[in-house]
Amino acid sequence: MTDGEIMKELREFVAARDWGQFHSPENLAKSVSIEAAELLELFQWKAPEGLDSLKDELADVLTYCYLLADKYDLDPKDLILEKLEKTKVKYPVEKSRGKSDKYDQL
Amino acid sequence: MTDGEIMKELREFVAARDWGQFHSPENLAKSVSIEAAELLELFQWKAPEGLDSLKDELADVLTYCYLLADKYDLDPKDLILEKLEKTKVKYPVEKSRGKSDKYDQL
Amino acid sequence: MTDGEIMKELREFVAARDWGQFHSPENLAKSVSIEAAELLELFQWKAPEGLDSLKDELADVLTYCYLLADKYDLDPKDLILEKLEKTKVKYPVEKSRGKSDKYDQL
Amino acid sequence: MTDGEIMKELREFVAARDWGQFHSPENLAKSVSIEAAELLELFQWKAPEGLDSLKDELADVLTYCYLLADKYDLDPKDLILEKLEKTKVKYPVEKSRGKSDKYDQL
Repeated sequence: MTDGEIMKELREFVAARDWGQFHSPENLAKSVSIEAAELLELFQWKAPEGLDSLKDELADVLTYCYLLADKYDLDPKDLILEKLEKTKVKYPVEKSRGKSDKYDQL
Repeated sequence: MTDGEIMKELREFVAARDWGQFHSPENLAKSVSIEAAELLELFQWKAPEGLDSLKDELADVLTYCYLLADKYDLDPKDLILEKLEKTKVKYPVEKSRGKSDKYDQL
Repeated sequence: MTDGEIMKELREFVAARDWGQFHSPENLAKSVSIEAAELLELFQWKAPEGLDSLKDELADVLTYCYLLADKYDLDPKDLILEKLEKTKVKYPVEKSRGKSDKYDQL
Repeated sequence: MTDGEIMKELREFVAARDWGQFHSPENLAKSVSIEAAELLELFQWKAPEGLDSLKDELADVLTYCYLLADKYDLDPKDLILEKLEKTKVKYPVEKSRGKSDKYDQL
């Protein structure tokens, strides 16, 4: 299934429930943070056992990212690839290899 | 480009910098939350002007989600679709239409 | 300095800048999350060196918590103590000692 | 009750449950973010009704902030006041009045 087809599925899901009224970009941005924290909660005190909760929470973050991207007619994959090109420039291999420092501290 | 091809790009980017040592699942989960908050920050006091920052921050969240998914050999699109099926059951159209309540309060 | 005196300082700071217009409870709640992620970012890949950044980021989270509490005439210390009493009941010593499980899984 | 007395209450609560082993600074920083998102969740789609949940979630954020401060022998109120002095310098009244812009964009 392509990203386009997934977006169509998500749009139909939202439309059937008339939830578009709640999905302002701001509310979706809040939702990404809320779901990201639920993902983080699985790692709060120790590593999670099993993958079920991790799959669910990761899916929730991805879903709200997709819905927010769709608000602006953005393609999630294009976003990842375009940012990757910028990051490659910010973190040249020879300067950043094996380091976790921020680009302005390399 | 398929999800598989994007994952390959991301893996090569990480490997070239020897950053795999920093990418424990826990660190990636923290990173998803950190980037999600940078996305939210664009909406802290008002709506963002222009799309450039939003595209960058949304890409960062997506990228860490992809890297975390890849740790467990999970396909991001499968995750979204599998969770969507669960959510459809939790939020039947007739009970949830036009409501923002949680499923256990419908 | 008492909590009441700190609140007065914070209120004067906000009033002098006419920032009350931006400080809706929702915006303050977003701000708490945004600052919490900046605190977390200090621990993204390794432990922070030195205390300066940690003090700043922790102060930002606390400050927005105080401002949000003040919106509802709540006293931060009372909040902590009242919640502590609830948590003591949810996590009885004999059941929770040495365990990081949630109360419903003890 | 002073901050010192509250810290003592929190320390006794943690010690009685032998939870200090889970309270690394990193785990506490994660916990601040997780609880901040639970606070934000109350504002996900609309404003919360009633104050009970808000009081609980705000208390949770504050409690983890206090526990993290205590790890480094920091006083929460001192943190707030010291940061306030810095923020006053970064945001002079005459430049920042009525504006929600970041200090480097004023």
